[in-house]
Amino acid sequence: MPMEVFNYPAWNLIALERGSAIPLYQQLFAQLRGLIADGRIPRGARLPPSRMLSDELAISRNTVVLAYEKLATEGYLQKRLGAGTFVEQVFPEDHLPRPPVAMPGGDERPARPSIHAEALLALDVPPERIERFGLSPGIPALNEFPYEVFARLAGQHWRAHAASHTGYDYARATLPLSRQIAAYLEETRGIVCRPEQVIIFSSTVQAAAMTAHVLLNQGDRVLLEDPGHVTQLATLTACGLRVEPVPVDDDGFDIAAHDHAASPARLAIVSAVEQFPFGCTMSAARRQALLDWAAAEDGWVLEDDFNSEIRWSGAPVPPLHAGNSGRVVYTSSFNRVLAPGLRLAYLVAPQELIEAFKLAQRIFSFYAPLPDQALVAEFMRSGHLASHLRRMRAIYRERAGTLADGLRSHLGGDFIVPDVKAGLHLTIRSPRPFDDRAVSKRLLDHEMDCPPLSRYCRSALKRHGFVLGFGNNPVKRIRRYAEILARTIEELG
Amino acid sequence: MPMEVFNYPAWNLIALERGSAIPLYQQLFAQLRGLIADGRIPRGARLPPSRMLSDELAISRNTVVLAYEKLATEGYLQKRLGAGTFVEQVFPEDHLPRPPVAMPGGDERPARPSIHAEALLALDVPPERIERFGLSPGIPALNEFPYEVFARLAGQHWRAHAASHTGYDYARATLPLSRQIAAYLEETRGIVCRPEQVIIFSSTVQAAAMTAHVLLNQGDRVLLEDPGHVTQLATLTACGLRVEPVPVDDDGFDIAAHDHAASPARLAIVSAVEQFPFGCTMSAARRQALLDWAAAEDGWVLEDDFNSEIRWSGAPVPPLHAGNSGRVVYTSSFNRVLAPGLRLAYLVAPQELIEAFKLAQRIFSFYAPLPDQALVAEFMRSGHLASHLRRMRAIYRERAGTLADGLRSHLGGDFIVPDVKAGLHLTIRSPRPFDDRAVSKRLLDHEMDCPPLSRYCRSALKRHGFVLGFGNNPVKRIRRYAEILARTIEELG
Repeated sequence: MPMEVFNYPAWNLIALERGSAIPLYQQLFAQLRGLIADGRIPRGARLPPSRMLSDELAISRNTVVLAYEKLATEGYLQKRLGAGTFVEQVFPEDHLPRPPVAMPGGDERPARPSIHAEALLALDVPPERIERFGLSPGIPALNEFPYEVFARLAGQHWRAHAASHTGYDYARATLPLSRQIAAYLEETRGIVCRPEQVIIFSSTVQAAAMTAHVLLNQGDRVLLEDPGHVTQLATLTACGLRVEPVPVDDDGFDIAAHDHAASPARLAIVSAVEQFPFGCTMSAARRQALLDWAAAEDGWVLEDDFNSEIRWSGAPVPPLHAGNSGRVVYTSSFNRVLAPGLRLAYLVAPQELIEAFKLAQRIFSFYAPLPDQALVAEFMRSGHLASHLRRMRAIYRERAGTLADGLRSHLGGDFIVPDVKAGLHLTIRSPRPFDDRAVSKRLLDHEMDCPPLSRYCRSALKRHGFVLGFGNNPVKRIRRYAEILARTIEELG
Repeated sequence: MPMEVFNYPAWNLIALERGSAIPLYQQLFAQLRGLIADGRIPRGARLPPSRMLSDELAISRNTVVLAYEKLATEGYLQKRLGAGTFVEQVFPEDHLPRPPVAMPGGDERPARPSIHAEALLALDVPPERIERFGLSPGIPALNEFPYEVFARLAGQHWRAHAASHTGYDYARATLPLSRQIAAYLEETRGIVCRPEQVIIFSSTVQAAAMTAHVLLNQGDRVLLEDPGHVTQLATLTACGLRVEPVPVDDDGFDIAAHDHAASPARLAIVSAVEQFPFGCTMSAARRQALLDWAAAEDGWVLEDDFNSEIRWSGAPVPPLHAGNSGRVVYTSSFNRVLAPGLRLAYLVAPQELIEAFKLAQRIFSFYAPLPDQALVAEFMRSGHLASHLRRMRAIYRERAGTLADGLRSHLGGDFIVPDVKAGLHLTIRSPRPFDDRAVSKRLLDHEMDCPPLSRYCRSALKRHGFVLGFGNNPVKRIRRYAEILARTIEELG
């Protein structure tokens, strides 16, 4: 099965840098050799036909042929007429004597990262957001954070000499915040759960790692939204899982587009309410199909609801978990409703897996600081979160509207500019392909951080456009940024 | 090589519960079947001879024979005369039809954890410390935490509207604390490093996970101190590594006791200054041997210095990293010098691996909350940490002395009671074996939390005694606890 070959995580780790001084075939050669040396492409394995790999990586077939030839010349591959290209069973280095041993006490060899770390270093993980730059996505209005309330609550917390939140009692000290989150989820998201099901940690990435640990075995397949988060792919691969992108359209994640019989998967990670980066909502039919798949195939859904809690228009859209919690693990964070710097995230574990999730949390030591949890619990209990969100909704509505208006008037009809009703960003798409990476790069000169849509696409079918944040930008600047964006697109044609 | 079989992580996951209603052979059978079904013991693999496994697990040979026989009867094993016992290539369930599919929308199958999670659920991970119980180890004096200073500093931090510590700027916002830690390490531990090398996160467990990711490949071997931390073993196994215990004696971790040629390892995790639970210090000769091993074998050392920063007597003992930083990753936390609830830990990365460590930190999202980091940085900068530690040293000296005196007068000569000069616990050993678990269990009735030494021993050679904390107990109570401990040991014989 060629699909089998392509889904092996090794292929996900190949990332070629166009425009680099190193020719593409040389990059491909080096990365393939690394994966072969690592054993990620095992000895004796059949490599995909050159045409297939070139399609998968969106490079010319000749580049693949050259890389394969170089690997064959160096003794890593053999071609068998009519059968394909195979990894050798014996490598040249197998015949080498052991490397000379350094003098005791000395250390002449340079430190070298693991093959895995090297592969990830070479991976095109998007740069970290530059939040002081214009339109940087995903960042809440940092100046509107309730600093004074936090100053008061923090002072109260520490002055109470709360020894229960200073020690190691991670399991019990977390309960007040779990209770607040359970109540909040029921009120705002229609999710009914017991406080014991709410497990609190620092990042939704940890939710994915714990879910993988509790529910999946090494090498199991995980379905990810395409386009979608890029670092998520790196994290799951690092957890020993095989990752497979599934296309997203205006109706959201489409489980029917995945051939389960050919490549059975155990977990799908989706954002049903506000997909990232598209912002689409999963339709009722797609939701039912996904839940049916999970029930029928012993699969699981990790619902990452990170972007949908701040909504200023339209009827609230329920998360997947609100309808059927049996095979859905729900996760979200306080990054957008409060502040990313607080590093507070949580998941809702299925009732019968609470103990397994708590053990995973303990083994990986995924706990959030206790004083912070006490602070946020009190912030919620005394009604501050509700009033903060009311205030922020008005601010974000104005900022989102300003950005959409600015884009529509400056960009003309070249882009699809959606109406945004929730979240902190707006994704614009161009119906025709263009070099969105070049535009994004040029915008850095204007102190604007607008990631290209193509970066989030895993499949060969790239979409082009920009992910534009409005959360942390005042209205006046948003108008100016829309203008600069339009001008830069025009300049680079 | 039988060693090869024994070092396979599968064996580390076998944990039998004595005194359970389920007979031992039945437990062993069920756990072996799980490991075989999981593929952790691969099809076709040779199992260790029954005598070997019985030694390894410290059970009777007959128990192993019975478990093997049951597995053979059920079609998972075959005995080949004169060759040994092998896992079958074909299992009974291979012939079964696929399980019936649940009705769409319904979900009749119960949630089941991954085989890995099930194995860990069955593992004898020690219970969480009950810190309100007497002598619970590893807990600092929670009532002596500088609450008022923190109240003042927290108020100042939030009132300054520090937007740079509210957002996503994890990489830059962390620098003030990195600078303070680098200066602190140079002054108190003799470690010279640049602030950029100091990577801050939430737990030293994350240091092990990152080090494994950056420096090791899947299946590489890690050497752990025996006796030593038990959860560490679970964490590393969960990271896909093979774990091998290496004995510790009064001179500390002994790399010479490990047969490198037979089972090459890539990483040793040690506490050179204050070993847990023994409290011994690694001798100069052992240190040199360990560094020589690392230099010669392309190995690494993760130095966990968690327990040695609070010392009230004797000359300061330098960590391993202070002498030779080339192949040593240093890690510690604020758990003992400040408070576990703060969840702040750090590592010092080798200069040439800073980028690889930072990428691992990003991929796993191992960042500590930014406001907390700002708070602790200011706490250190303004000299509060130094004066807090001065004050705590006097308190811990008195508590440690009281405990040692109490034990010596009540226990008589049955136990070795060491002089403790640092840390928050004291480990007493009995020269003869006894049921320390039973005593530990009985002590819970007296609201005392004194873990048995045998729990921390991985090898068949168990040592017996107790790990006794004095950090969080006032002097008066410590006297009383020593008395109850002695009485309970006497009662249970």
